Amino acid sequence: MPRVSVPLEIAYRILNHGPATLVTTRAGARANVMAAQWVMPIDFDPCRIAVVVDRTTYTRKLFDESGELAICVPSHEQAKLTWRVGSTTGAEVDKLAEIETFAAEIIAAPLVAGCVGWLECKVVRGAAYDEVAKETDLFIVEAVAAAVDARCWRDERLVLDEMRTLHHLGGGRFLASGEAISGR
Amino acid sequence: MPRVSVPLEIAYRILNHGPATLVTTRAGARANVMAAQWVMPIDFDPCRIAVVVDRTTYTRKLFDESGELAICVPSHEQAKLTWRVGSTTGAEVDKLAEIETFAAEIIAAPLVAGCVGWLECKVVRGAAYDEVAKETDLFIVEAVAAAVDARCWRDERLVLDEMRTLHHLGGGRFLASGEAISGR
Repeated sequence: MPRVSVPLEIAYRILNHGPATLVTTRAGARANVMAAQWVMPIDFDPCRIAVVVDRTTYTRKLFDESGELAICVPSHEQAKLTWRVGSTTGAEVDKLAEIETFAAEIIAAPLVAGCVGWLECKVVRGAAYDEVAKETDLFIVEAVAAAVDARCWRDERLVLDEMRTLHHLGGGRFLASGEAISGR
Repeated sequence: MPRVSVPLEIAYRILNHGPATLVTTRAGARANVMAAQWVMPIDFDPCRIAVVVDRTTYTRKLFDESGELAICVPSHEQAKLTWRVGSTTGAEVDKLAEIETFAAEIIAAPLVAGCVGWLECKVVRGAAYDEVAKETDLFIVEAVAAAVDARCWRDERLVLDEMRTLHHLGGGRFLASGEAISGR
């Protein structure tokens, strides 16, 4: 499906409404993917994102080495894929072997095909950031490239009528994004 | 509506799927409420949550003084309320004057009636946390009490069939939480 590049200052819009994500990483020849619900924007410009990358994951090992990760926002058709990559470990299986991916623009991590959107990110370092990350597994990353499936992007805004996002309640139970409601 | 207390070690389930929230605060005689989408769990037990409280908000002023805030998860019927309190400032208007609230169990901030759930929280302090918060407006708080509307809680899990949550795309455009999808 055609993809559209998203200007970084509005890239938070891919992630603003709290969807489940797939986090991909690469360090050298090793790449991995995991599911992550604990991901959210924290600033517009630069586009900064907070993400929990648990210290027990293989993704964390690769992320610690590379300082890069991609945040892919799966569609409602990818619930089983999302749960599967969230309940197995890259230390034991090559989770990407059976998943269609494509090359990112800037970072080395592969991007998962079929998603609503993609954010390529680099970690923000600094003594305080590093200490908080070490204690809590919470990292702040900055988007360096962003794109969406063209079907989900109109007038520079995310529109989820054809595709929908997943929102993880826990234990493999997701809610799809639902109807549009205006607060105005 | 009847409320159910939620054990703190599973209180993340109120917030896990990325809903929009209403953040309330109180410092002395002054209380306030704002909308916040940039809120997510970062740990289970203790139940820790990351929340962006922008330095320009009146909520931040009260939160800096009190070190406490409540995270209320509005229902799909509260979209206009959510947008209104997110697009006005407590420095100019008493946003709580027209909103039904009730007393929290532990903290001083009022809780907004009609919500799906409520988390009472206290800020986690420390040199690194404080520095990151100062630079990014991102705070880590810890839940000290939690409750849900009884209609949304079955077998210790959030169930959103009768009530639904809001997910803010931006600019007053929300998506309601939608259908359940199993990843298993």
